[in-house]
Amino acid sequence: MSNFTLQLLLTGNELMTGDVIDTNSAMIAKQVSELGIDINRRVTISDDMSSLVCEIEHMSKQCDVLIINGGLGPTTDDLTSEALATVCNQPLIENQQAINHLNQWAKNRSFTLDKANLKQAWLPQNADIIYNRTGSAVGIHIKINDCEIYCTPGVPSELKIMMEEEIIPSLTQKVPNHDSVHITRLQTFGIGESRLQTMVDNAFPDWPNSIQVGYRADSPTVELKLITRSSKAHQLKTLWLPKIQELLNDNIISEIKDTPVSIPSSVVSLLKEKQLTLTTAESCTGGLIASQITSISGASSVYEAGFVTYSNTIKENVLNVRNKTINSTGAVSKETVIEMAKGAIDKANADIAIAVSGIAGPSGGTPDKPVGTVWIAWGTRKNMQTQHFIIKGNRQYFQRMVAARSLDLVRRLLIESKHKPLYVHNYE
Amino acid sequence: MSNFTLQLLLTGNELMTGDVIDTNSAMIAKQVSELGIDINRRVTISDDMSSLVCEIEHMSKQCDVLIINGGLGPTTDDLTSEALATVCNQPLIENQQAINHLNQWAKNRSFTLDKANLKQAWLPQNADIIYNRTGSAVGIHIKINDCEIYCTPGVPSELKIMMEEEIIPSLTQKVPNHDSVHITRLQTFGIGESRLQTMVDNAFPDWPNSIQVGYRADSPTVELKLITRSSKAHQLKTLWLPKIQELLNDNIISEIKDTPVSIPSSVVSLLKEKQLTLTTAESCTGGLIASQITSISGASSVYEAGFVTYSNTIKENVLNVRNKTINSTGAVSKETVIEMAKGAIDKANADIAIAVSGIAGPSGGTPDKPVGTVWIAWGTRKNMQTQHFIIKGNRQYFQRMVAARSLDLVRRLLIESKHKPLYVHNYE
Repeated sequence: MSNFTLQLLLTGNELMTGDVIDTNSAMIAKQVSELGIDINRRVTISDDMSSLVCEIEHMSKQCDVLIINGGLGPTTDDLTSEALATVCNQPLIENQQAINHLNQWAKNRSFTLDKANLKQAWLPQNADIIYNRTGSAVGIHIKINDCEIYCTPGVPSELKIMMEEEIIPSLTQKVPNHDSVHITRLQTFGIGESRLQTMVDNAFPDWPNSIQVGYRADSPTVELKLITRSSKAHQLKTLWLPKIQELLNDNIISEIKDTPVSIPSSVVSLLKEKQLTLTTAESCTGGLIASQITSISGASSVYEAGFVTYSNTIKENVLNVRNKTINSTGAVSKETVIEMAKGAIDKANADIAIAVSGIAGPSGGTPDKPVGTVWIAWGTRKNMQTQHFIIKGNRQYFQRMVAARSLDLVRRLLIESKHKPLYVHNYE
Repeated sequence: MSNFTLQLLLTGNELMTGDVIDTNSAMIAKQVSELGIDINRRVTISDDMSSLVCEIEHMSKQCDVLIINGGLGPTTDDLTSEALATVCNQPLIENQQAINHLNQWAKNRSFTLDKANLKQAWLPQNADIIYNRTGSAVGIHIKINDCEIYCTPGVPSELKIMMEEEIIPSLTQKVPNHDSVHITRLQTFGIGESRLQTMVDNAFPDWPNSIQVGYRADSPTVELKLITRSSKAHQLKTLWLPKIQELLNDNIISEIKDTPVSIPSSVVSLLKEKQLTLTTAESCTGGLIASQITSISGASSVYEAGFVTYSNTIKENVLNVRNKTINSTGAVSKETVIEMAKGAIDKANADIAIAVSGIAGPSGGTPDKPVGTVWIAWGTRKNMQTQHFIIKGNRQYFQRMVAARSLDLVRRLLIESKHKPLYVHNYE
């Protein structure tokens, strides 16, 4: 396995000009790492035919598998297929499977294919297509100089699905000993990446070398990975995993089986399980919590209504917050968020509410309540809890973090957590 | 100038495993683009001595300038200096300027240098240091095989300052005609990338070669770029830019001066300019439109309230949609979205409303109203317009596209557009 090499070639002018940050490489690297493979070299070039031909020629002689990303689209600067044909000295032919895929894709969208779209069906003669479930461009699989080449689309969402559903299963056949790597992944929220690492290091000075621990921040969550590479190590992990779970307790959202479970998705599942409904009353997050909940399929069975109440008048008129409360304690206060939450529960006839009011900035701060101040209320009509935070960062970071903590507090309520989250003592 | 080439070599294990996303490349690319230079090739490898030596050897023969990023730190996997010494066959010596810098750096921090830190002062004999204002590692400048090599730190903040203050001024001396590149960027919405290219190609068969046209999809918008590389071409562009603007008319959101203007940001600016307020009544988008509006600083002056009304009961109770309307035409209908919009205007006391009701899927479709069906209402109480779309794609794509089109329709209303958007005839 140590001799097995995988290289990555990315093509795209936008990657060279700095207009786009390359996130595809990291996604591909993470997916192949599940098979125990590291990418050992990555080359990025602009959409230029002679460069493409030269790199494919060179790289195909250097590695066992080459993944090419980008250059499959319909425009004239999409050159991957033609470059492959040049390197393997074969004609481009209209691939019937690719044509069928394009026709089906267009039909589903009541869309008429133009000449540019049809260009995507011209592939080197001995190439196979790789099915693209979400986009028009099929992937291309071809063998050149004993190197297996997989060409993938540049659009991240299409790439992700094609990697998961087509390329990883195909690579699984080709990589020796791929099943000797086990990875356990825990999705956590509430402890920063570096603090998480320190906690684990301090708690387990005698941690065994054969269980590799990895961390990856994917704001707002952090993933913790336990990687083992032998059956002896897999067994050892069954002893050490519970210790990690005990240490991190309810900071663990879930063990990641397939795709990570986001905080909103965890909340929707728990609400369904307990047959409870949620409503939201948002000031500073302006609908972000609602939109995160409703981005989950099936949210409609647990979420009927939400309120974005930016101004004081609207808080009064829509949620029946008392004018007296706002005048005496301000819109960003414990009392106001409690009344917002109760008003939302009444209006929506829901079991549980989240209400948030804060100062997202950049303007609107005062010495008493600086930018970043937020009050959150969450709970049932009878058992309403509140918490105050100061979250520093730009407007978007503030809004995302308030949404994440609000939903995490509801998650902890629903699992009846006995542990106070660390961020409650740890104002940012 | 066309012969001047710059390549980039990045080194770091974390870049290969997917644990870190490479943002340094984009930063370097944007900085050198100001000099009219594109990076034409970028290679990323792990911290491995033989790979480093091999790549530096090879790349230094291929380009005029090579920027190396990473591998300057104090730890054993920081190998750049040693690799350079191997390639140019020179001894590593303790560089006095580097020692002085390290001493000063440590003194400022009341910090005692250890052996690992002092390793950072060992440079190839004929190398110069590049001053690092913020970190301990000096950069390295050396000429190998007629190639100017600049080695830079991997820490983004240190890299940025070293690029701005040291490397860009040095490159300015070395790049011929560095001030001759002009780029005009137009942010568009409503025409897909491939159709946009076809439209431009068909409309201007005599388009001049000296004005390069580029496209970049950044869903939901597409950027069109006009790039010129001589003063003659810049002049020519002043004649052709208006033709493009006429062709694309109100599909252009704005010319991009610094950062792109998103559709929500354009709507917020137009509302401010016209002193109008907006409200939203969302079913299938579940708060996404509200959260896009409120992610813009200063949105509170034009947006006071929004409603997420998922269930029929809530549409009736909160927005006063008539039970009769929902029963006779359904929740996803022209009549319902009109009543939702008018109800929201009344509740929020706003000038303009957006109301959307549709079937985001994956479940909930019927033969009459398949998944992807949506009705949008937008306008003032007296002048309410509606439009029906079928948008295919997954739940998240559907929600993003409904939000984008809704806000784009309001943008077109606010600029009093006389042009019907293409997507109105072009259901996806």
